Amino acid sequence: MSGVVMPAVSPRVQSVHAQMTLDEKLAQLVGYWVDKGGEVVAPMAGERGNTGPYEEATLHGLGHLTRVYGTRPVDPIARAEWLWAEQRRLRAETRLGIPAIVHEECLTGLAAWKAATFPTPLAWGAAFDPELTEELGAAIGRSMAALGIHQGLAPVLDVVTDPRWGRVDECIAEDPYVVGTIGTAYVRGLQSAGVDATLKHFAGYSASQAGRNHAPVQMGRRRLQDVVLPPFEMAIRDGGVQSVMNSYAEIDGVPVASDPALLTALLRDEWGFEGTVVADYFSVAFLHSLHGVAGDLGEAAVLALRAGIDVELPTADAFAGPLRARLAAHPDEVELVDRAVLRVLAQKERLGLLDADFEAPPTEIDLDDPGLRALARRAAEESVVLLTNDGLLPLATPGRIALIGPNADSAESLMGCYSFANHVLAHHPGTPLGFEMPSIAEALLGEFAGADVVLERGCEVEDPDTTGIAAAVEAAAAADVAIVVVGDRAGLFGRGTVGEGNDVDDLELPGVQRRLVEAVIATGTPTTVVVVSGRPYAIGWMLEGPGAASAVLQAFFPGEEGGPAIAGILSGRTEPSGHLPVSLPRSAGAQPYTYLHPVLGGPTEITSADNTPALPFGHGLTYTTFERGSLITADAATDGILDVSVVVANTGDRLGTDVVQLYARDRVASVTRPVAQLLAYQRVSLEPGESVAVSFAVPAARLAFTGRDGRRIVEPGEIDLWVGPSCAQRDAEARVELTGNVHVVTAADLRTATATVRTGADALPVR
Amino acid sequence: MSGVVMPAVSPRVQSVHAQMTLDEKLAQLVGYWVDKGGEVVAPMAGERGNTGPYEEATLHGLGHLTRVYGTRPVDPIARAEWLWAEQRRLRAETRLGIPAIVHEECLTGLAAWKAATFPTPLAWGAAFDPELTEELGAAIGRSMAALGIHQGLAPVLDVVTDPRWGRVDECIAEDPYVVGTIGTAYVRGLQSAGVDATLKHFAGYSASQAGRNHAPVQMGRRRLQDVVLPPFEMAIRDGGVQSVMNSYAEIDGVPVASDPALLTALLRDEWGFEGTVVADYFSVAFLHSLHGVAGDLGEAAVLALRAGIDVELPTADAFAGPLRARLAAHPDEVELVDRAVLRVLAQKERLGLLDADFEAPPTEIDLDDPGLRALARRAAEESVVLLTNDGLLPLATPGRIALIGPNADSAESLMGCYSFANHVLAHHPGTPLGFEMPSIAEALLGEFAGADVVLERGCEVEDPDTTGIAAAVEAAAAADVAIVVVGDRAGLFGRGTVGEGNDVDDLELPGVQRRLVEAVIATGTPTTVVVVSGRPYAIGWMLEGPGAASAVLQAFFPGEEGGPAIAGILSGRTEPSGHLPVSLPRSAGAQPYTYLHPVLGGPTEITSADNTPALPFGHGLTYTTFERGSLITADAATDGILDVSVVVANTGDRLGTDVVQLYARDRVASVTRPVAQLLAYQRVSLEPGESVAVSFAVPAARLAFTGRDGRRIVEPGEIDLWVGPSCAQRDAEARVELTGNVHVVTAADLRTATATVRTGADALPVR
Repeated sequence: MSGVVMPAVSPRVQSVHAQMTLDEKLAQLVGYWVDKGGEVVAPMAGERGNTGPYEEATLHGLGHLTRVYGTRPVDPIARAEWLWAEQRRLRAETRLGIPAIVHEECLTGLAAWKAATFPTPLAWGAAFDPELTEELGAAIGRSMAALGIHQGLAPVLDVVTDPRWGRVDECIAEDPYVVGTIGTAYVRGLQSAGVDATLKHFAGYSASQAGRNHAPVQMGRRRLQDVVLPPFEMAIRDGGVQSVMNSYAEIDGVPVASDPALLTALLRDEWGFEGTVVADYFSVAFLHSLHGVAGDLGEAAVLALRAGIDVELPTADAFAGPLRARLAAHPDEVELVDRAVLRVLAQKERLGLLDADFEAPPTEIDLDDPGLRALARRAAEESVVLLTNDGLLPLATPGRIALIGPNADSAESLMGCYSFANHVLAHHPGTPLGFEMPSIAEALLGEFAGADVVLERGCEVEDPDTTGIAAAVEAAAAADVAIVVVGDRAGLFGRGTVGEGNDVDDLELPGVQRRLVEAVIATGTPTTVVVVSGRPYAIGWMLEGPGAASAVLQAFFPGEEGGPAIAGILSGRTEPSGHLPVSLPRSAGAQPYTYLHPVLGGPTEITSADNTPALPFGHGLTYTTFERGSLITADAATDGILDVSVVVANTGDRLGTDVVQLYARDRVASVTRPVAQLLAYQRVSLEPGESVAVSFAVPAARLAFTGRDGRRIVEPGEIDLWVGPSCAQRDAEARVELTGNVHVVTAADLRTATATVRTGADALPVR
Repeated sequence: MSGVVMPAVSPRVQSVHAQMTLDEKLAQLVGYWVDKGGEVVAPMAGERGNTGPYEEATLHGLGHLTRVYGTRPVDPIARAEWLWAEQRRLRAETRLGIPAIVHEECLTGLAAWKAATFPTPLAWGAAFDPELTEELGAAIGRSMAALGIHQGLAPVLDVVTDPRWGRVDECIAEDPYVVGTIGTAYVRGLQSAGVDATLKHFAGYSASQAGRNHAPVQMGRRRLQDVVLPPFEMAIRDGGVQSVMNSYAEIDGVPVASDPALLTALLRDEWGFEGTVVADYFSVAFLHSLHGVAGDLGEAAVLALRAGIDVELPTADAFAGPLRARLAAHPDEVELVDRAVLRVLAQKERLGLLDADFEAPPTEIDLDDPGLRALARRAAEESVVLLTNDGLLPLATPGRIALIGPNADSAESLMGCYSFANHVLAHHPGTPLGFEMPSIAEALLGEFAGADVVLERGCEVEDPDTTGIAAAVEAAAAADVAIVVVGDRAGLFGRGTVGEGNDVDDLELPGVQRRLVEAVIATGTPTTVVVVSGRPYAIGWMLEGPGAASAVLQAFFPGEEGGPAIAGILSGRTEPSGHLPVSLPRSAGAQPYTYLHPVLGGPTEITSADNTPALPFGHGLTYTTFERGSLITADAATDGILDVSVVVANTGDRLGTDVVQLYARDRVASVTRPVAQLLAYQRVSLEPGESVAVSFAVPAARLAFTGRDGRRIVEPGEIDLWVGPSCAQRDAEARVELTGNVHVVTAADLRTATATVRTGADALPVR
């Protein structure tokens, strides 16, 4: 075999590698799941699991320790003591003395017992605040680093493609630039604490057919390059991420785990990525058992290695015995093992593992300290989206409140599927969360201390039982205002209504919740609906028309401070400032849909099937009003920078935060282009009457696309630019020309847009 | 400009071409729609239409006359007289004396007044009978030829991808081999009469996102090559088709009408197609107005010509003034015009148009003669699919029959959207069909002459009014059996429930028809439901469970003899023999779905969203029973022939027809492969107790796929083979090995499978 390029590594790594036996090499390429019991971890993983007892499996060393904190509720300090001892044992008792990389999930915070649970990534998207996400990543990283964890399996950079998919709550947005900027911020934050981030799931996972988990992805190169890959490229080039996890998906018939074009030619040769590629759990074995592109596990192992996967997770299925047997017959393939081992050793060297003595485990730790809670509160507050409001909100002096709905008094409903609570604790009934987690009801009682609050569940999230609706209606009828809290319950694989494996073919609210909401609204009592969910639902019916609610709030799993955050927004103590990071869908049958569609991907007279979203990407109301005007811009070169400035004024009588959204449309191009594309965005908080000038410097390369010949290019021609409250409304617009020749994009072009906010005398009037 | 290869043409064509002015050339590349009034022909076509008065527009000649019979109800003989005179005028009064090609729609028969209306193509698929389709094509072609029509805009070879799409009824099947074999048979038939067939829509139209008409297609090369293109390749290589129409679609950002890779490199350079490529109506202009890949109509014209479109239809929008102006500035592009003109002249020469004298128009014609009606009857009978039957059918002595439903007494409901009745006559209320068209009710009265038949409409196809249901329930309750006829009403662009532009985001029966059916079934009276529709609906609820009907028949628009055909099957005069050419969907939200899915495209434990079809591809019951066994086969070379024989026995007590379906699964391949793929099929009619041996000779190339390097290959390895009553059931199975090296497929490999049916002593016992 030829063509295997060995990574450049230090002399020390070279020297360690040179001493290794094949067994020692293979040991570095696998994980061991110490805490995993006999239960099946994931559907269709079948008998996959650890190969043999731990002592035996680690005789020759170990690549990764899999989720030592995140598999069952263990006391962090006791577990840290075990972990430090175990690392010392690996140092002392294996021939080469190399400690293991410890990896954990950390999507909504470190997924470990007693650790803070932050909003789910879809809420990060709703906040449109990369700085906040970077702080969040850094805070999570500090907790992890303190516990001896080296690698976190986040962020998820899959661009939302279909709300039917169960894992939408793990994703950031439907727009690749929002995913890229916020995802990169998370990477910077986490890695600032010395913990390697892992980009998931490279690539294409979220575009599975009909939103069905693991289903084939039908997609051509152009869409892959222009929509799916950019967030990964940003997090690699701008964020310097250290690890990447492959996608389970097949794209156009080729499982990514077996695809050298993506995992090597693009990722490493083109983008220059030098970290490790780790396998999504069981995905190496799936090449044989589910994809059928390998005749056995040994062949699966070699396919994965050749493609560019370095480490098999969570455990050694294919990379252990089956690969050992395969290599005996194909000794030339050991080169592939060497390449992967060098990368793993380089990661361990960089992480300091080759020198660590593991003498001093932490003796006390607060994984939910006041700083973390304050951050959780801010993240929750920024992410709640006010969808509609006829003036009912804020509820200054509510009087009698009927608080209704299955999610009104449920702490678990505030957390995403990768929270420790929903991912793990759900299997340990009776075990407490280990930190404070006020429900919306509890928070409201504090928020409206003088109010008379009646609580009626009405119905369950999933149950078909409607008998509780009558009492809810009675409570609503007797109240001054009703607040109905409905939505999802996150879980995995059939437990819950959203989360990994919980895909749907219907986007109505789960169970009988629509009937509950309709019944409460029908009482005539002014009603606010709060949807706490992991995916956007088809709730157009409650947004307008005769059956509409007075106000609707959308919270994507807002985490441990979600209750107080929502209560604060209801009362007006906090201003709502979230915006939709995804289109609010019309119906399941209208999917897939993206706001980034060309003319014919939207509603037209040529089809009777209306796919207009119930509310557009970017939408989000406040308690004040904004005017956006004085859009000033000029032509720019295809290899230059578009300077666009706009004045935003708070024209209402309350403090408010606008997410200034700059959109573009390329009017004529050599391939079809979307009718709207977010070029840049910036949160600005304004006092009543205040105005600011927001100036964006947008690389023309933000308008690049894959041309007919496969190169990413910027074409000259007319561009419509506008600023508005969502992708669907142009408050201020201009048309500019990109001038010069067709520009072939290089890495140097791929800068993010920057925004400058000038206030006071520097800000122009709106008109 | 270079690289434009001129077609090889006769000296005569060369000589004509050499004399032509640019105006004369352009005139040959466009159509004129004589009968088109001022009304907008299609949504979003905007102001498109004929450029100026006819006399003026034809000063320099004319390429095509557009639908002279098919635009409004005109007497065929009177119109033929006009047409012959017009052709003589073009001969005599234009400088070069070249007559026009006359093209018409002919998907369900010649789309002209008084012409026979055959079953819709989805019904051809359900019949699984290429010989029948060839006869049908030949019969249609003879009518067309007699009227001076040279080109028919059929067949549609789009593989059904999503039942939400409105044009599913124009397609043949969800399986590319069924589409290819039956579509090629139609081409052979039509062209045997001297009429050029036109393959529609090349390519990818049916794969539009969410089944929305004209919406972007997300698809990679492999799926395009392995699923979408094969029917076109078959009809070109095996069928010798003379014309191809482009797809409106964009695939991965590139509108097909502007894609030289498909329209020239593949179609002509690789497949050797030498006919003309005609534009789907308005699609050249759409490059500018909808796709935005051309800045104006002149640029659109050049993009289309360069891609490989030769003729703009239906009228000269871009290829007239705008192209003329463009060429003035870009004289080098006249080469593109020359290439197209040479092809059009070659077509006219081959059609005999350069020599025709048009002296003798037909003086009488019967477009619906007894031969045509007999063929229509046979086609209808073979295509009706018996989905379920608890023994109620056949209805030997029905007694009191309650005949219910909006389609029970509606002749129009039996015809597809491209029938003259639904396409054109709908705009001319009061004009009679011009031929006999018994409704199901009329046919049933004849079929069950002794029965007491009560007719109750119950509801309309689309209307929300439920007030008629009570009377229907009363009639059902008082009857011995109920027959409820529900389904679609075909039409275009918002008129009707299926047909061009009538896409849906919900696959429930339209309107309140489900409520009607449920109410009738709830009476307890044994109920047969007949679904007459243009798409498969999510009718799982009536197929099994407590609310199931006693029997369900599915008829895809069965045409003018559909009434008697359905009546005959209900009574048992005729045996049901149709099979589902498409999966019967579970729900709109579970779409898209195809039976040709890899493991992860079907139901798995890894997703909670069930997409199992309500009934599988290939399903169809009879009034007898079949056993299938003694499957005999052997290993074959990757470049060889798989010989498979199976014995099929009629084990019931009635005559019956089985569609013997041979499926395969490639167990391990270098890319993911479907869990089932139809390799070959054969209708066989068997007397009670009779058995036959059906031997298939299947080129191993039927198992070819696009490998990692883009070539179509056959890989060695294990193949599961089985025969069963649908793709989902294995009655007799075997595993064989494809041996030898990886075989790169050549044109010579692309033969269809052949079947030999041996009866009597030659047939082995089933076991």
